[in-house]
Amino acid sequence: MEHKQQGKQSVRFEHPPVISGHASVVGQKEGEGPYGSYFDVIEQDPKVGGQTWEEAEGKLQEKAAKLAIQHSGFTQDDIRYIVAGDLLGQLMASSFGLMTLQKPFFGVYGACSTMGESISLAAMLLDGGYADHILALTSSHFASAEKQFRFPLGYSNQRPKAATWTVTGSGGVVLSSPDKAKGKVVVRGITTGKIVDYGVKDTMNMGACMAPAAGDAIAAHFSDFKSSPEDYDRIITGDLGKVGKDILIDLLEAKGYDIRKQYMDCGIEIYDEEQQVQAGGSGCGCSAVMLTGYILKKLTSGEWQKVLFVPTGALLSVVSFNEGNSIPGIAHAVLLEHVDHCK
Amino acid sequence: MEHKQQGKQSVRFEHPPVISGHASVVGQKEGEGPYGSYFDVIEQDPKVGGQTWEEAEGKLQEKAAKLAIQHSGFTQDDIRYIVAGDLLGQLMASSFGLMTLQKPFFGVYGACSTMGESISLAAMLLDGGYADHILALTSSHFASAEKQFRFPLGYSNQRPKAATWTVTGSGGVVLSSPDKAKGKVVVRGITTGKIVDYGVKDTMNMGACMAPAAGDAIAAHFSDFKSSPEDYDRIITGDLGKVGKDILIDLLEAKGYDIRKQYMDCGIEIYDEEQQVQAGGSGCGCSAVMLTGYILKKLTSGEWQKVLFVPTGALLSVVSFNEGNSIPGIAHAVLLEHVDHCK
Repeated sequence: MEHKQQGKQSVRFEHPPVISGHASVVGQKEGEGPYGSYFDVIEQDPKVGGQTWEEAEGKLQEKAAKLAIQHSGFTQDDIRYIVAGDLLGQLMASSFGLMTLQKPFFGVYGACSTMGESISLAAMLLDGGYADHILALTSSHFASAEKQFRFPLGYSNQRPKAATWTVTGSGGVVLSSPDKAKGKVVVRGITTGKIVDYGVKDTMNMGACMAPAAGDAIAAHFSDFKSSPEDYDRIITGDLGKVGKDILIDLLEAKGYDIRKQYMDCGIEIYDEEQQVQAGGSGCGCSAVMLTGYILKKLTSGEWQKVLFVPTGALLSVVSFNEGNSIPGIAHAVLLEHVDHCK
Repeated sequence: MEHKQQGKQSVRFEHPPVISGHASVVGQKEGEGPYGSYFDVIEQDPKVGGQTWEEAEGKLQEKAAKLAIQHSGFTQDDIRYIVAGDLLGQLMASSFGLMTLQKPFFGVYGACSTMGESISLAAMLLDGGYADHILALTSSHFASAEKQFRFPLGYSNQRPKAATWTVTGSGGVVLSSPDKAKGKVVVRGITTGKIVDYGVKDTMNMGACMAPAAGDAIAAHFSDFKSSPEDYDRIITGDLGKVGKDILIDLLEAKGYDIRKQYMDCGIEIYDEEQQVQAGGSGCGCSAVMLTGYILKKLTSGEWQKVLFVPTGALLSVVSFNEGNSIPGIAHAVLLEHVDHCK
């Protein structure tokens, strides 16, 4: 059998799955940010025509799912599996939002690393021959997340400088077998993260919770692929924000890797300074919409040839937090390549 | 490429992954039930040495994980991935319980169908060549589930006849590549469920919520494998309970399948009438401990040659319920075979 296991925690795909379609749906605030023109749909109604915040988030997923399928050139019938999840308890947004698609469904939870987890699993299922086309997606919504994790919106709590703003948005990709589809971006490899806990307990400083997991996954990726930061056009984390960024750079420097030149964080990018989001954007939707709205376009055009996409998750629960537990992190790295440069 | 996709929503493994080790850890009540002597560990302390119910559930998972690895004859170092989840918001039990194992981690959520989902994904990842050994597991705990989904224990609410009792327990299996391990039970195939919603809104009648999803997955399995109920020694659902059982039998009869002779439900089996659990046991742990404690022993001995194991999940959230939503269901079928009869 062809050797697929790469190092200790990675996979390298010899015939890599193709991203045949992708779509991004965001809220008004994200549409007003510096990347607004890149997103496919900007929803002006914060409830997306629904009755509740959870329903709104589900509708974001449904829209992103259908648009990604449309962009792939395939039909809903061609999709064999959906791999999806969200931040909400019991994956409410995915369960209700994706029900109408009536597809075999794998629910996943990796907090804000979910886009990395869903793409990783989808890529292996495709490459293994278990499907020709798989939809991988995730979402978050500012209001449903605040309601679940922090305070009701009406309470108008103050936000410290290390706090992040949960992105309202959903991003979805259709991954296809290279025998069945063409596309300019492929998933060349994955590095699956471990749960890493440095003992941080501050829910208003998620970047510090997640940075160690990101550092762990990125270092594992370099080691497994025998690569170094210079081999990538960009190394892009999900939502570490300004505080997490500095920690990550320091942690990787201590391991001998200087990622300053290649580094970018979706959470820092997605909003402008004037949008008053403190440390940046966060949520599963943050990296998902930046991937599907911006990063994949740069890779498709060939401006970027090789990107390490590393969504980062804080395994935070209100219950575990209130019981005094720390907030462990996890990060899943996905190696994306422009297809002309695949060896 | 070898054809692995079987029908519309199934996979058949030509060289099926082997169950090289498995373990069950249960609480006192489960230990006092009719299957008590089958379980590996019966915990007398409801908090399993922890401070909180969530920590207790995490410790159940940790124990089941380590024991399953020990029983497999392999070591923690040999395990490449963990695929695990639980009922709690943001997978608290898995995140905290399995952190010490320090393994690349895929968090999954399928409500009480999680054991079916985790085995399905693990089987494909193994068969695809991405790992030699994977640990798949899940758990539930009566107290953490009641706290999250229903009432605080101290409230002493009454329980209607259709209510089920969340099993305290965790079951884990080590799946191994057939090139790397021997074992008498293999995962011959999987049928991945869709989210099915018949509009039931009663949190005290989870069986009715899940039965349509179970019926859908089982009928899809028969169709994809061109099989009928007589081809199986047992068809075993997770936790439909007494109410759900009758609905499932009726639904499948309407589709032309009479499963009465082969049918068994882990939720109905796990407790005695005298244990006052109304419609039966439930929770991710219910099917997980019945699988690892009892079903796999029957398959190992060869008394059963072929079992369709169908954990069933109710995609219930307190928030979605309080917002007036129905409770959709999902079920994932796993075809287990005694190895001498594999063709």
